Amino acid sequence: MNYVSINFKDKFSKFNEHWSPRVIAEMNDYQFKLTKVRGEFVWHKHADTDEVFIVIDGKLTIAFRDGGVTLESGEMFVISKGVEHRPVAEDECHIMLVEPKGVKNTGDTESELTAEDKIWV
Amino acid sequence: MNYVSINFKDKFSKFNEHWSPRVIAEMNDYQFKLTKVRGEFVWHKHADTDEVFIVIDGKLTIAFRDGGVTLESGEMFVISKGVEHRPVAEDECHIMLVEPKGVKNTGDTESELTAEDKIWV
Repeated sequence: MNYVSINFKDKFSKFNEHWSPRVIAEMNDYQFKLTKVRGEFVWHKHADTDEVFIVIDGKLTIAFRDGGVTLESGEMFVISKGVEHRPVAEDECHIMLVEPKGVKNTGDTESELTAEDKIWV
Repeated sequence: MNYVSINFKDKFSKFNEHWSPRVIAEMNDYQFKLTKVRGEFVWHKHADTDEVFIVIDGKLTIAFRDGGVTLESGEMFVISKGVEHRPVAEDECHIMLVEPKGVKNTGDTESELTAEDKIWV
C-alpha cells in the first residue's frame, strides 16, 4: 500500500488567501488546518472548545482582553474555551490550528472573515 | 495576566530518554506529547483512537504490515485506529504526538518500552 506524508510547506504552497483555514488531516473528530495570516483578525471566542495554535513559520501575537502571547516558529499555545482572543500578525505568518470538526474560525463573531471549515488542501 | 508560549526546542532540551513521551499541552480531552526516539519501537496498535505523528526534527519511518511512510521535519501522518504500526528512526528524531488522554505508547502490546502517559515537561 502507498502511504504519503503530509508536508506543511507543500500544503502552504497550494493557497494564498489569508485567514482562510485549509484542512490537511483529520484525527477522530478533530481537524488539523493550515492558515496564512496577516494583519488583525476579529475578536472572538469558542464557547465549547479549546483551540490550539502552532506557528510553522513567522510570528503571531494572540491578544487577550487582559494581555497577550507572541508565538514564533516552533511554538504553540492552547486557547481555553470561552476565552476571547484576537490573532495579529504584522507580517505574513503560517500557522496550524488543531480543533474539533465544525469549529468556525470567527467563533461566535459574525464577520466577513468567517470562513468555511471544510476546504481541504 | 502572564501568558507563555510552549517552545518545542526548549521542551526537548529538558529530557533525554528515548520512547518516553512528555506531555506539553492539553486541549479538551487530548494531549500534545514530545518524544525523542531512536532505533526500532515495538509493533502495536490503538484499538480505539487515531494517532498523529508530527516530526519536529529528524527523520522517522512508520512501518505498517503492508508498507510504510517516512516523515521528515515539517511533516505529519495520521495512523488510523486499529492499524498495526512500528516507528523506526535510524538516528535520533524528535517528534510530537497528538492523541486522547490515557493512550499508552505501546497500545495493546505489553513491553518494557511501555511508558507512563502522565509525565509533563
